[in-house]
Amino acid sequence: MQYRFSGRVAGMQSSVIRDILKLAQGSDLLSFAGGLPDAKLFPVLAIREAAARVLTDRPADALQYGPTEGDRQLREWLCGQAAAKGTGATPDETLLTTGSQQALDLAVRALTEPGDAVLVENPTYLAALQLFGAYGLTVIPVASDERGPLPDDTKRLIQEKRPRLLYGVPTFGNPTGRTWSAERRTAIIRLCAAEGVPILEDDPYSALRFAEEEREPSLFSLAGSCKGSPVVYLGTFSKMVAPGLRTGWAMGDAEVIRMMAKAKQASDLHSSALDQRIIVQLLRDFPLEDYLRDVSREYGRRMNLMQRELASHRIEGLRWEEPRGGMFLWLTLPEALDAEALLRATLRKGVAFVPGAPFFAGVPEKNTARLNFTGMDDERTVAGIGLLAEAISEFLARS
Amino acid sequence: MQYRFSGRVAGMQSSVIRDILKLAQGSDLLSFAGGLPDAKLFPVLAIREAAARVLTDRPADALQYGPTEGDRQLREWLCGQAAAKGTGATPDETLLTTGSQQALDLAVRALTEPGDAVLVENPTYLAALQLFGAYGLTVIPVASDERGPLPDDTKRLIQEKRPRLLYGVPTFGNPTGRTWSAERRTAIIRLCAAEGVPILEDDPYSALRFAEEEREPSLFSLAGSCKGSPVVYLGTFSKMVAPGLRTGWAMGDAEVIRMMAKAKQASDLHSSALDQRIIVQLLRDFPLEDYLRDVSREYGRRMNLMQRELASHRIEGLRWEEPRGGMFLWLTLPEALDAEALLRATLRKGVAFVPGAPFFAGVPEKNTARLNFTGMDDERTVAGIGLLAEAISEFLARS
Repeated sequence: MQYRFSGRVAGMQSSVIRDILKLAQGSDLLSFAGGLPDAKLFPVLAIREAAARVLTDRPADALQYGPTEGDRQLREWLCGQAAAKGTGATPDETLLTTGSQQALDLAVRALTEPGDAVLVENPTYLAALQLFGAYGLTVIPVASDERGPLPDDTKRLIQEKRPRLLYGVPTFGNPTGRTWSAERRTAIIRLCAAEGVPILEDDPYSALRFAEEEREPSLFSLAGSCKGSPVVYLGTFSKMVAPGLRTGWAMGDAEVIRMMAKAKQASDLHSSALDQRIIVQLLRDFPLEDYLRDVSREYGRRMNLMQRELASHRIEGLRWEEPRGGMFLWLTLPEALDAEALLRATLRKGVAFVPGAPFFAGVPEKNTARLNFTGMDDERTVAGIGLLAEAISEFLARS
Repeated sequence: MQYRFSGRVAGMQSSVIRDILKLAQGSDLLSFAGGLPDAKLFPVLAIREAAARVLTDRPADALQYGPTEGDRQLREWLCGQAAAKGTGATPDETLLTTGSQQALDLAVRALTEPGDAVLVENPTYLAALQLFGAYGLTVIPVASDERGPLPDDTKRLIQEKRPRLLYGVPTFGNPTGRTWSAERRTAIIRLCAAEGVPILEDDPYSALRFAEEEREPSLFSLAGSCKGSPVVYLGTFSKMVAPGLRTGWAMGDAEVIRMMAKAKQASDLHSSALDQRIIVQLLRDFPLEDYLRDVSREYGRRMNLMQRELASHRIEGLRWEEPRGGMFLWLTLPEALDAEALLRATLRKGVAFVPGAPFFAGVPEKNTARLNFTGMDDERTVAGIGLLAEAISEFLARS
């Protein structure tokens, strides 16, 4: 039989980069391409103990059908965390999801119609751009710099385009590692609140913070209470505990959460109850804050190593921004260098990374690249950066 | 801030029944309303051992990000099962999902556009009807009897309405417990294949079979190989192992599966890796077939108990169909009796069930009801049926 597919999925971009990287897969590859935390750092023992405890004490809670909104105790814990950061939130203002990707999907389902405009900081998270495309949204980039979206441009675009959403990763963003400044945060919230534009604050990385002292409040906590808040906050345990447990959440105005839960009920009834119970147990028995401090310190060390190695090759015109957390270093290559061409060259040397172009809405800056620094050990990082530098130098020598 | 919601979710029906039942929740309620397997029968010990093993031997496989399509070994096992039933299928023709509800959601996303028509057996699974509504589909009921949809009516409706899908639960259906006959299966497949209408075969219950000897092949296996098959098969471990593990799957033509995987990637990247690994381990170490035979026998016994109790009250005009598996008994009440009115009366006596009307597409038969027989122990079932019979008798005495 011949199938006809919906425009929704048939039109979804399969990324060229993804295809190139798929061809190049292999365990010997030195890869800066992924966005994976280091599995060697997962709190495996604590997770195993939590699983055993959950399946001994109250197995039915982990194995039976559960509420669409998710485990109540986990939602209560999240509310406690939000309260500690200054935002009152109740379990009814909280929805557990299959990773924060699903929280994003449900928010878009609840808040947009095909043809609507959505503003994004630029560049931004690739899978969000793909999702917006799949829902038939018109993606409009806001002029952005290291401190976040520019308020003037945001204001102009809101008034011209009447967007239904503004989307961003304000803390240790993907792909740039950038963090919006406190002033920008306040300005963007004010603008969106005044104009009635919901903000989706995608915040997977804020727990991976290299320096304790610096700490911008989330947009969500700046906005105050959940009720009527312009911010829908999207969080995840993927980078705090482990992504295989697929547990994320959304927090925001109760009505938004209720609509997202309606969409979720039709999508999958609910997310894994076992995963949620394991996390509840872990949060009781395991010193998560200490663990996150250690993991963050280690990732910070790896980021510094990467920077040092990049600097050591003294390549003229190569720049990067130093992230204060997260998983990515954002490179700007010498101006004429197309990162996709560079990728083909580095793959021949056994090194992978992600060119920056696909992360841009609108005109891409082709001489940009995203390097992940969390996934490999020091030796492989040093070797990989060496080969990357070699490939760049070869390009420069030829031009 | 005032939110505007998409028609997609704002228009989703919140079921009246759901609301009534929500009000009546409480542990003392004798409930035939749910669709839950009995948590006391879950293979808890085996799941606990599998979890411990998985988190000891290869923790990264359970905790790290995984492929959107799901764990490869689990897909291979499913292909082995399909092969044993006569259908060649490869892992590329298999997609793991968050329960079969998500498989249904993804199939609808991939195969329909808003405004399309979808044919359904009638009555049918309520959450499927709600999902179709949320995607803006026009739901068209096919005249159906105890042996399944009527081929003549199916043919007529396909030609008149040019539907994009036919949906059904052919084995031990929800809500009716009905099983399509072998002749109907063959006829429906032929019709749909000839007219290019994909069939979504939703099959959550077939492992719960009360009598070993009777065994209709699935539509999927009747259709032969995956390649070009008109059938997209939706399965789940929810009723075979435990629903909290949220692991279902879709199997069918590779192109359909690829499109569903694209939609899934945008939705949630992938489903719980831990749940999938636990199931892989369980399938190695645990005699699942023996277990399912025991569980099915127990559910069959409970179904018979329910039938006997219903019969013992000798209520004139009360009929039901005897299911050969699954979780539900479908009641037809004396003709003038509206099941929703009856529900209000039984709730006052502390008994819940689900009126049949919401399961109908088109004109509902209001004197129908769905009783679940898997969720309660004998004593509570006997008490509940007694009170239900009492309530019916009181209605009949008044009319």
